[in-house]
Amino acid sequence: MISEDISKKAKLIDEIIETFLPKEEGLAKSVAEAMNYSVHVGGKRIRPMLMMQSFEMFGGSDPSDTLYPFMAAIEMIHTYSLCHDDLPAMDNDDMRRGKPSTHAKFGEAMGILAGDGLLNYAFETAFRAFGPDRSKIGDGSDPSRDLTRIARSLAILADKAGINGMIGGQVVDIESENAGSDVTLDTVKFIHEKKTAAMIESALMIGAALAGAGDKDIEMLEKIGSDIGLAFQIRDDILDIEGDENALGKPVGSDEENGKTTYVSLVGLSQAKEDVKELSQRAISLTDSLSCGDNDASAFLKELIEWMILRDR
Amino acid sequence: MISEDISKKAKLIDEIIETFLPKEEGLAKSVAEAMNYSVHVGGKRIRPMLMMQSFEMFGGSDPSDTLYPFMAAIEMIHTYSLCHDDLPAMDNDDMRRGKPSTHAKFGEAMGILAGDGLLNYAFETAFRAFGPDRSKIGDGSDPSRDLTRIARSLAILADKAGINGMIGGQVVDIESENAGSDVTLDTVKFIHEKKTAAMIESALMIGAALAGAGDKDIEMLEKIGSDIGLAFQIRDDILDIEGDENALGKPVGSDEENGKTTYVSLVGLSQAKEDVKELSQRAISLTDSLSCGDNDASAFLKELIEWMILRDR
Repeated sequence: MISEDISKKAKLIDEIIETFLPKEEGLAKSVAEAMNYSVHVGGKRIRPMLMMQSFEMFGGSDPSDTLYPFMAAIEMIHTYSLCHDDLPAMDNDDMRRGKPSTHAKFGEAMGILAGDGLLNYAFETAFRAFGPDRSKIGDGSDPSRDLTRIARSLAILADKAGINGMIGGQVVDIESENAGSDVTLDTVKFIHEKKTAAMIESALMIGAALAGAGDKDIEMLEKIGSDIGLAFQIRDDILDIEGDENALGKPVGSDEENGKTTYVSLVGLSQAKEDVKELSQRAISLTDSLSCGDNDASAFLKELIEWMILRDR
Repeated sequence: MISEDISKKAKLIDEIIETFLPKEEGLAKSVAEAMNYSVHVGGKRIRPMLMMQSFEMFGGSDPSDTLYPFMAAIEMIHTYSLCHDDLPAMDNDDMRRGKPSTHAKFGEAMGILAGDGLLNYAFETAFRAFGPDRSKIGDGSDPSRDLTRIARSLAILADKAGINGMIGGQVVDIESENAGSDVTLDTVKFIHEKKTAAMIESALMIGAALAGAGDKDIEMLEKIGSDIGLAFQIRDDILDIEGDENALGKPVGSDEENGKTTYVSLVGLSQAKEDVKELSQRAISLTDSLSCGDNDASAFLKELIEWMILRDR
């Protein structure tokens, strides 16, 4: 059962992330508490899971040196984006996965600061890939830490999280809420591609970059991530219409209630389902064309893609 | 006149920073507009100025390759912290240097997103030190871009900006506002050392690290930055009591009005002035003990330290 494998992997990933969380100590320990709470409210850990698959597909070694810090970093960036999206001035959500959202639990100022803390700490964490001893960074005493691969992965991480990626998507999403029915399909696609797909692309690209994959494979993974991300988000829109509230852990029908223009409201439910299928099939066939060939990791990635798109939660 | 030299340098630094600002284009151009507005509202550019001095003191070469991206990055981090500090849930300031603060001009959601955008973009910008062509990162074709020095500088930047640095200071500052007269001198010093001094330490340390300075000098610069930062902030508290509103561009007396416990309210005006003097003298004598010896850049740094501490704005 793929969903059991995924749960098992998610548990392993939780354990890895845990080792990178900040200590709750000192005068400013309250912000570490709020940051850790936000990470623990958790999710499906899809981004670090995709990163790990991609790293394994390309035969990466010594994952604890460079992969694990980046896995924790990408989940911290995802978590900060949820902290800030939930703020009163943004989506104003008091609940997240059945628990109080960060600002609802710790106050609005801390909701902002915990988000800032997580974004900054994501980079602090990724920089741990340089090695434990700063005075030895790059002196060659630690050959598993290839500075070139780390540098490339950092550039991908920041680019996909920033205003040309995730933040850009959130900006257009917020602005579209006021535009009502003037929102076009191109705009909805832009939002999904930036707000959701960019970080999925980043996950797949970084895993491969850290494992030493070449440019062509990394570009291919960007395309795969783009397809998966868009399909994943259209699936979200579909679940908001015909999903099960218990499985989802949140009320359905909120998009329609809020008069939100979605992919589904623009193309219709049946076309949306067709598009999800087509995108996922294309992502899977692109996976087959990667130079790493068939291996256990790529087989699991393909199952993961199918699960992400057929999921009911 | 030192203040003329400083103005001239600040102008040069403005021109450097300008080249790194995001383009205002595409669907998400509004966030770039808000980010650039926040940077343009500007300030004294003290952090990049200190970084530049430190780089020159240690004989750094090819500043446009690695120094300039880090100079822009540290000013972006400083600017994001002001964006978020001004938010209604934090200090709720509608004005900044005589102009509308970011959220006052662009709305609260954009105040949050422009801050997030600047923090993320600061790292994107610093990563430009890796070179323009990502496919060539670290392949040795560009010897002026020493990955070891860049890696060390990145680690310093993130550490000093994060929850163990600037954000930690802001957290304790916000929490202290509710504690009233229970705030101790140790807490006030912690806030100044983290919220202000950490990024000044970072500026001096990174300039030296990028120029190839050794551990001992970088540690010394951390101490110098700590002294300057604390003195700078005590000077701020003093100016809030006896400063000139026209020169400052903001009303004085706000600390007393808000019943804020400050360094001055705890030790008295005369002792505070003594402490500023002692801290600045110690910073200057530590500068004399750096291994770079006397040169034009270190002479200017010492003048800059004196100016920062005697300034009337």
